Amino acid sequence: MELMGDKNDLPKQDQQWARQAWAHLSRVRQQSPLIQCITNFVSMDFVANVMLAAGASPAMIHSIEEIPDFTPKAHALYINVGTLTPDWLPAMKLAIQVANENKKPWVLDPVAAGASGFRLKACLELLGMKPAVVRGNGSEIIALFKGSEDSDSKGVDSMHESTDAVEAAKSLAQVSGSIVSVSGAVDIVTDGQRVVGAKNGISMLQKITATGCSVTALIAAFVAIDPSRAFEATASAFSVFGVASEIGMDMAKGPASLRMHMIDSLYGLDQATVLHRVNISAI
Amino acid sequence: MELMGDKNDLPKQDQQWARQAWAHLSRVRQQSPLIQCITNFVSMDFVANVMLAAGASPAMIHSIEEIPDFTPKAHALYINVGTLTPDWLPAMKLAIQVANENKKPWVLDPVAAGASGFRLKACLELLGMKPAVVRGNGSEIIALFKGSEDSDSKGVDSMHESTDAVEAAKSLAQVSGSIVSVSGAVDIVTDGQRVVGAKNGISMLQKITATGCSVTALIAAFVAIDPSRAFEATASAFSVFGVASEIGMDMAKGPASLRMHMIDSLYGLDQATVLHRVNISAI
Amino acid sequence: MELMGDKNDLPKQDQQWARQAWAHLSRVRQQSPLIQCITNFVSMDFVANVMLAAGASPAMIHSIEEIPDFTPKAHALYINVGTLTPDWLPAMKLAIQVANENKKPWVLDPVAAGASGFRLKACLELLGMKPAVVRGNGSEIIALFKGSEDSDSKGVDSMHESTDAVEAAKSLAQVSGSIVSVSGAVDIVTDGQRVVGAKNGISMLQKITATGCSVTALIAAFVAIDPSRAFEATASAFSVFGVASEIGMDMAKGPASLRMHMIDSLYGLDQATVLHRVNISAI
Repeated sequence: MELMGDKNDLPKQDQQWARQAWAHLSRVRQQSPLIQCITNFVSMDFVANVMLAAGASPAMIHSIEEIPDFTPKAHALYINVGTLTPDWLPAMKLAIQVANENKKPWVLDPVAAGASGFRLKACLELLGMKPAVVRGNGSEIIALFKGSEDSDSKGVDSMHESTDAVEAAKSLAQVSGSIVSVSGAVDIVTDGQRVVGAKNGISMLQKITATGCSVTALIAAFVAIDPSRAFEATASAFSVFGVASEIGMDMAKGPASLRMHMIDSLYGLDQATVLHRVNISAI
Repeated sequence: MELMGDKNDLPKQDQQWARQAWAHLSRVRQQSPLIQCITNFVSMDFVANVMLAAGASPAMIHSIEEIPDFTPKAHALYINVGTLTPDWLPAMKLAIQVANENKKPWVLDPVAAGASGFRLKACLELLGMKPAVVRGNGSEIIALFKGSEDSDSKGVDSMHESTDAVEAAKSLAQVSGSIVSVSGAVDIVTDGQRVVGAKNGISMLQKITATGCSVTALIAAFVAIDPSRAFEATASAFSVFGVASEIGMDMAKGPASLRMHMIDSLYGLDQATVLHRVNISAI
Repeated sequence: MELMGDKNDLPKQDQQWARQAWAHLSRVRQQSPLIQCITNFVSMDFVANVMLAAGASPAMIHSIEEIPDFTPKAHALYINVGTLTPDWLPAMKLAIQVANENKKPWVLDPVAAGASGFRLKACLELLGMKPAVVRGNGSEIIALFKGSEDSDSKGVDSMHESTDAVEAAKSLAQVSGSIVSVSGAVDIVTDGQRVVGAKNGISMLQKITATGCSVTALIAAFVAIDPSRAFEATASAFSVFGVASEIGMDMAKGPASLRMHMIDSLYGLDQATVLHRVNISAI
C-alpha cells in the first residue's frame, strides 16, 4: 500500500521503465532463451540457478569442438573471465565469432580486469570483438577504459565508486560501440549518450560470491529476447535482480539465506511487485 | 494417516518396491560406498552434497595419474559429460577400463548428448564401454539411440517426453546391454525387457541445475551396494530422490529453498516415509 | 545465561584464547585481507562464501600468467589439492614461490593426501616449500607424516581419529617447520612443541562437502592478519568456524540448512557469543 502510494508519486518516466522491466521478464519466462555460458568455475552453479529461476535456459558449454554445432542454436552468449587461463581464450573467441556471424548478442563480464596484465589484455581483445553489453564494477570499467586508452595503469582498485565510473563508462561505450554498465550502489547503464541509473538492490549482495557474474548472465538472457534494445534490456535485468534481492533481504538472516531467498524471489516475482518496486531513472 | 490408508490399497507389487527402496537406502547409509565421480564443473558441489546426505562417500578425482591407484578402491564410478572437453576423455576411459577390470559398476550421465557431434561421438564411445546404467532425459536417450543406429539426427530436442522415449530406451538397453533409465514426469527404468515407472518427484526440480546429475550420482551409489541388481537399484534411487524432493517441496518457497529442503529431507528420510510414499510399478 | 555461568567457571587460559579469537575475527573484518585461492572445483563457491561471510576478500586466480602481477598483492595464499591434475602444479608452485619471496604466509590443504602416489608426491613437494600452516584430517596428516618418513604406506584410511594423529602432527611440525593442524571431534594445532585442542564444532559438518576446505581457507585469512602468530591464528580460525557451526546447528534441519545457517552465523558472530562459546585449551 505504502509502496503504491510512493510509486504513484513517481514521474511518468519511471513507470515506463518498470512496465518495460516486467515485459522483459515476462518474455524471458515465455521464450526461455538458450544462453551459452563460458564462465568461471566459482560461479557456474549459482549463475545456472539464477538463470533457471528467471526462466532462461543456461548451457555451460566451453569446449571449442562443440562451438560450431552448438553456438548457432543459442539465443545469446555469455563470456566471463573470472578464472581465465590461456587455454580457455580460443574457445571464448571462437564462440564470439560464431555468435557474431549468426547475429546473436553476446555479453562480457570482465571480472577483475585490472588484476594482471594477462587478464587486462585478454579483456581488451574480447572487448574488441563487439559485445552487445559489458558489465563490470567501477574498478573493472575504469581498468578497461584506461587499458583501451593505452594507459599503463593496470592495478586493481576497489575504491572506485560506480558513480565515479560514469565518465569512464560513457567514454568506453563511445569507443567500443557496446552498452557499458557499472554495478554499484546505483547500477549505471550507458550507450555513450544516454545514461540511466537502476537503484534497486542491497549492499549485502557484496557478501555473496558471484552476484556480479549472475546479474551479467541475467543481462544476457534479457538481451537475448530484445537484442535490438540492449540498453533497455540491461536496465531491466539490473532492476529485476535488484528487486529480487530486496525481497530476499526481507527474509534473510545473513548472506547465505539471502542468496536462497533472492533466487526464490526471482522465481516468484509478479507484475505488481515489479511495477511497484522498479526504480530506474535518467542520470 | 491418509497416506497409510492410500498405500494400504496399493497392489502388493508396489509395496515390494517400496521395501526394496528402503533396504537400498539403508545399505547405502550403513556401507557408505566410495563413489569416484568424474563429472562436470556445474554440478560438483551439489552432487557431492546429495551423495553425502544419502550416506555415500563421493570422491571427485579426475586426474589420469591417480586412476591406477584410486579407482580400484572405489565401489562404483560415475561418469558425466556435462562440461566435457577432449582432455577429460582419456581419464574417463581409463577409469572405466579400471572399473571394468575390477568388476566395479559404473554409471553414465550423457548430458546434452545431442548438443554437438563431438559430444554424441564421445557419449557413444563411452556407451560402448558397458556402463551398468545410463540415465538421461528423453532427448538424451533418443539422441543416443539414434546415434547408435548411425542416424544423422544430432539435434537437441527437449520436446520429447520421457514416455515417448520408452521405446528408444528399451531398444538402447537391448543393444547396449546396460540398464537404461529416462527422467521425466515418470522416471522410466528398463533392462530391455522389463520396464518400470518411478512416479515420485516434482516438476520444480527442472528449475534447479544439476538435479539430473545428482540423481545419476545417487544411482551410482545404489548400484554400488547391489551391483548384481542394477535394474532394481536404479528404480530405488529414482524413488528416494523423488520422495525427498516431494517432502522438500512441502517446505519450499521456490527452487533455491527446494534444493536445500530436498537435501535435508534426503538426509532425514525414515522407513515409514519411504514405505508410504515410494510409488513404482511395472509399465 | 547458562552459557555465561558455564564460562565463568572456565580457567583463565580459556578466556584468553576466546578473547584472542574475537580479536582475530575483528581484524579480519576490519582489514578484509585479500586471499589468493588455488583450490579444487568442488569447493570454490562454498569457500568463497565462507571467506566473504568472515570479512575476508577471496580471489580464485590460478593462471600461471597472472601470478607475477597478482600474488604480490595478496595478503596470503591458499593452496588446496582436492581436484589436482599435473597442469595445476606449476601454478601452485610459482604462486608459493612468489608468496615466499614477498614474505606472505601460505596455507596447505592436502586433501586426500594418501589417495594416490601422484597426490602424495605432490603434497610432499608442496610441504617442502614451507607453508605457514598445514590443515588436514587425521588420515591426511598421517599419510603426509609417513610419506615424509619415506614409508611405503600410501593408502587412504579414514579410521584414524584426530587424537590418534597428534603424534604424527607433532613430528610433522618438527620436520617441516610448519604449524600442523588436524580436524576432528577436537581440532588439534601444534607447532611441534605446543599442542592445543579447539573443541567447538559439530559432527554433521562431515555431511557437507568442502567444510575442511573452508576452514583451511579461514585459517589463511586469520594467518594473513597475524602472520607472526600462525599457531594462535589457526586455533582462532578453527574456533570461529566451530562456533558458527554450533549456532547454525541450532536452526538446521539437515546438512543443507546447516550449511546456510552456518554461513549466516559466521557473518553475524558478535563478541559476546565468541567470548562465551570459544573452547580452546592446551593438550
